[in-house]
Amino acid sequence: MTTPTLPNTRLWSDKAKSLSPYVPGEQPKHANLCKLNTNENPFAPSPKAIAAMRAVLDDEAVLRLYPEPESDALRQALADFHGLDIDEVFVGNGSDEVLALVFASFFLKPQPLLTPDIGYSFYPVYADTFGVELQKIPLNADFCIDINDYQAPCGGIIIANPNAPTGVLLSLADIETLARRHSDSVVVIDEAYIDYADDVAAASAVSLIRKYDNLVVTQTFSKSRALAGLRVGMAFANPSLIAALSAMKNSFNSYPLDRVAQAGAAASIADGEYFEQKRLEVIALRAALVNDLNELGFKVLPSSANFVFAAPNHHTLSAKDVFEKLREQGVIVRHWQKERISEYLRITVGTAEQNARLIQVLTQIL
Amino acid sequence: MTTPTLPNTRLWSDKAKSLSPYVPGEQPKHANLCKLNTNENPFAPSPKAIAAMRAVLDDEAVLRLYPEPESDALRQALADFHGLDIDEVFVGNGSDEVLALVFASFFLKPQPLLTPDIGYSFYPVYADTFGVELQKIPLNADFCIDINDYQAPCGGIIIANPNAPTGVLLSLADIETLARRHSDSVVVIDEAYIDYADDVAAASAVSLIRKYDNLVVTQTFSKSRALAGLRVGMAFANPSLIAALSAMKNSFNSYPLDRVAQAGAAASIADGEYFEQKRLEVIALRAALVNDLNELGFKVLPSSANFVFAAPNHHTLSAKDVFEKLREQGVIVRHWQKERISEYLRITVGTAEQNARLIQVLTQIL
Repeated sequence: MTTPTLPNTRLWSDKAKSLSPYVPGEQPKHANLCKLNTNENPFAPSPKAIAAMRAVLDDEAVLRLYPEPESDALRQALADFHGLDIDEVFVGNGSDEVLALVFASFFLKPQPLLTPDIGYSFYPVYADTFGVELQKIPLNADFCIDINDYQAPCGGIIIANPNAPTGVLLSLADIETLARRHSDSVVVIDEAYIDYADDVAAASAVSLIRKYDNLVVTQTFSKSRALAGLRVGMAFANPSLIAALSAMKNSFNSYPLDRVAQAGAAASIADGEYFEQKRLEVIALRAALVNDLNELGFKVLPSSANFVFAAPNHHTLSAKDVFEKLREQGVIVRHWQKERISEYLRITVGTAEQNARLIQVLTQIL
Repeated sequence: MTTPTLPNTRLWSDKAKSLSPYVPGEQPKHANLCKLNTNENPFAPSPKAIAAMRAVLDDEAVLRLYPEPESDALRQALADFHGLDIDEVFVGNGSDEVLALVFASFFLKPQPLLTPDIGYSFYPVYADTFGVELQKIPLNADFCIDINDYQAPCGGIIIANPNAPTGVLLSLADIETLARRHSDSVVVIDEAYIDYADDVAAASAVSLIRKYDNLVVTQTFSKSRALAGLRVGMAFANPSLIAALSAMKNSFNSYPLDRVAQAGAAASIADGEYFEQKRLEVIALRAALVNDLNELGFKVLPSSANFVFAAPNHHTLSAKDVFEKLREQGVIVRHWQKERISEYLRITVGTAEQNARLIQVLTQIL
């Protein structure tokens, strides 16, 4: 939205005045850019998902009607996929909305919420929005989470796994330890990128939600499902926690998912074969990209995501310089001018052609 | 969502424990019901809207990408329709989401928010959610708003116009007086049903937003645009107020509108001819329905909406009895067991066939 540089805030609530809104990665309106900045899937969504959405549009009587408010068919599809019951599944308008409801439902506590100092940059924004005190725990020197740093009494824990923007994976054993140690707080594992772990089954905490009634796992259709344009996210947890999310949702917006989105997402989940094939292709593309970046002298963190976090390690050019020079050549990646990570670029794994263009331009620059 | 009767709230925030969520009108899953309970449009959306949504699905490269976060094309279409600038327009995931952001942006004030005692039943829920003190001002005996009852110092005013569930319209002159008298508070006119006023131009407060910098007008695609299944709502106001909504949105969920919804809504707005034709058809159907209900002895409030609020006035059957007997015959309307309105039914204006079925069943019952 075109925000005036200095809006007149006379009529704003104090809360509105105090906000520091999230700044999403740029969505450039020009074509022909090599867009490697927002971790979208290089491949199209499942053709079955597209067909299901077309079917909604083909029934001219249907869009005039409200959607099913609790997205039952979609939640059932997700439950079936993970071997869960429908009351262990929550869905929302992108995992960003799901996370917002998570903050409001579980983290408004007297003790602070613990989260890594480097993580998804929306978490501090949510904390601001909902008045949650946030305590940032530094990642170690390798950008890994040491769970022994999370021993303080807390009102909750939230960790992106694999972490963003590093791509580094925390082991399921460590997650289990966190959930066990903090049994009176809600531990949220934000698995936006989990499907790009080599062994998803061994990496995802969804398998733990029946064992730990304080564990919430969030996921999204925006990455591995190639449906960022559709806005669907989900959470898996004990029915008591799902009931809290549901109550919060119905105190905010009863119908967050439109009919097209519900149908498309459910059909995507049902198409396991396409999903697995494209997931493995991205993992292979990532391996090739890491290899190429290493050859150019980049230091690349071990990634379990569809992006890599890579430091140019150049003797004269900073990461910011490289970011800007890439941009001049029409290749967009992401860079944060923030402590500890300013020498890194976050680069989405693109198609083979996109990755080749990136490497070609980098070769010119460096 | 299947909420357990008594969920274990051990890990819920106090806020989550204190909620009284909104209960939307039933979305029955069985076909062949005469569904006159949630004020949906009896007609299909514009064929041009459907075509625009199909075009999104035809481009297989596009849904994998995030949508434009500020919905610029849609906001521009709305600005063009109303003769406004894009920075006077905000859009969200249904007007319910827009209203939630309005509450958080403007009504968190030391003084109470004023609203009619009978109005959209989501307002008290939002007040709860965001910790806004609500002061309900009784409608007069004719279910009209007397603006002289709104003279107390306040932190804001919100009024549905036409009001829900009464359908009664407040004049633009009265709205102007409210905005002028309360120049230091935000006055919100929720125009979900305004397009069913006989003379929309003379009824809608959108024409006043440049005159009163404290006036916010919300509307929706769910009623007159026949896109309840798509979840798109909007607000019109001074750019400073739009900037607050935008900041609040970006502190909660950056991408509330998916690509299909943005495209469909924008194309719907551009199809003025279809819109006007269907709008007038619903108004004509409403007149016929009111006539038929009057003949059956109903007292019907004057409606500027696509529903009527009607009291059976029966000597032995209560409104609740009639509601239940209609339901037994597969005709679903809405009834609230609440003070002042328990003797009324809210009946959506359906197709000629649906209205005939309603009248036929009522004739049997009464």
